[in-house]
Amino acid sequence: MVDFLDSVMAAEKNNKSFLCVGLDPDPAHMPAHLAGEPDGVFQFCRGIVDATHDLVLAFKPQIAFFAAQAAEGQLRRLIEYIHANTEIPVILDAKRADVTSTSTMYAREAFEVYGADALTVNPYFGLDSLQPFLDYQDKGIIILCRTSNPGGGEIQNLVTESGETVYEVVARKAAGEWNGNGNVLLVTGATHPGELRRIRDIVGAMTLLIPGIGAQGGDVAAMIEAARGGGVIVSSSRAVIYAGADRDFAQAARAAATETRNSINDALYAICNDIRS
Amino acid sequence: MVDFLDSVMAAEKNNKSFLCVGLDPDPAHMPAHLAGEPDGVFQFCRGIVDATHDLVLAFKPQIAFFAAQAAEGQLRRLIEYIHANTEIPVILDAKRADVTSTSTMYAREAFEVYGADALTVNPYFGLDSLQPFLDYQDKGIIILCRTSNPGGGEIQNLVTESGETVYEVVARKAAGEWNGNGNVLLVTGATHPGELRRIRDIVGAMTLLIPGIGAQGGDVAAMIEAARGGGVIVSSSRAVIYAGADRDFAQAARAAATETRNSINDALYAICNDIRS
Repeated sequence: MVDFLDSVMAAEKNNKSFLCVGLDPDPAHMPAHLAGEPDGVFQFCRGIVDATHDLVLAFKPQIAFFAAQAAEGQLRRLIEYIHANTEIPVILDAKRADVTSTSTMYAREAFEVYGADALTVNPYFGLDSLQPFLDYQDKGIIILCRTSNPGGGEIQNLVTESGETVYEVVARKAAGEWNGNGNVLLVTGATHPGELRRIRDIVGAMTLLIPGIGAQGGDVAAMIEAARGGGVIVSSSRAVIYAGADRDFAQAARAAATETRNSINDALYAICNDIRS
Repeated sequence: MVDFLDSVMAAEKNNKSFLCVGLDPDPAHMPAHLAGEPDGVFQFCRGIVDATHDLVLAFKPQIAFFAAQAAEGQLRRLIEYIHANTEIPVILDAKRADVTSTSTMYAREAFEVYGADALTVNPYFGLDSLQPFLDYQDKGIIILCRTSNPGGGEIQNLVTESGETVYEVVARKAAGEWNGNGNVLLVTGATHPGELRRIRDIVGAMTLLIPGIGAQGGDVAAMIEAARGGGVIVSSSRAVIYAGADRDFAQAARAAATETRNSINDALYAICNDIRS
């Protein structure tokens, strides 16, 4: 068991939550009093963290929203802040991958520069591209499988000559030959419950990172039903962090996170009392 | 024709070159007198740029090597330097892609924060993920098709039920429905000439970014023969920029770039006088 998954399970238990809050600081949606501040990105995200850390099992900063503002320093500071002030693990959402020598540098970026506990990566280059990430045995390596966007099926749902889709091949490899260190997770969108169920069947109890509820429209009850049989990290970003647009943004985010956490738990309790059963 | 491709063709003509030098500043390989300097990454890359800008048709900084050292500011400064002092276009090698709202931020990172002229992107999410990049009509959007790494075929060479491989589907879409703005290029490794030829057959005259000669072992003559019929940008990184390891690194890089440029041209002249014929 990797340290990252230990932290996730501890937070899940302590906070009675499967919710991961995505930190996507967009100046177009941030409260006006912060959008103009030199460290407004950090202040905004810190406000969300302070208001929700007892409601979540992970935080997931999306690096693009920081990089688009040249706010890498504020991202480093944010992750340090989360580690210093909470027990919540940090997933750096960056969808990295390249040839081995370059993936080695991306792994260094995520785990040494930023100190993330887990990283999202893209499977298109194959295993040798993923190995430098997987070699960080205490980190969670979260491989894209079936993404939540409308066009996600364009490549991922191509049917191969064996009858498997591309995303099913990724799931099979991720649960088998790619998982030598036991630190693989998969990204599987909530917007396609049938495919989520298919992935659960292939990977067994592997923990799944499930984006797509909230702003992207995924249905919570259908998602929870499909994901039964193993760990889940259910991610919501915009619907939580932009619940309020003014000085009350953190309280509004807390209310939205509470409601989302509870709706996930309600859906789960309606089915059974343990998602691993 | 997008501005990026205009710049590439102008540099190709002025410098009689199909060579793109990849800027991958790795402290483990950089000259010792620069590795300890606060702006050593910038100084190293500037030395390579000054020594090779009349021998290339593009520069390709690989963002991971900068991010792994928290040297994003030096990357911005480097791209500004190239634009201010040369006519050579800059490809930001970052292999980005995500859901649309996040890709919008990655596009802002590449084209507004860094001022790149082109960007490498990953096709796994499908067209809606690529659209925010493609919407920058004057920029080159360089989509991964068949990568040069040993495991590149693991996903890319899966055969679909129609008989096409995944990389062939990507090539077909990239040359068709994905290319509404005429600004798509493809990444096709030099290490698989048979597949490079297949891609050329699918995409017609589309310009191909071809990594994998030099350190990765791709054969120049076989690559040029396979790529005939359209534009090419042949990329070499380590074999050029680490040709020398001491204070003479820039002169050594110039010698290596000259030799690589000439070997590409020799291979081309051995076949014909115009790669577009």
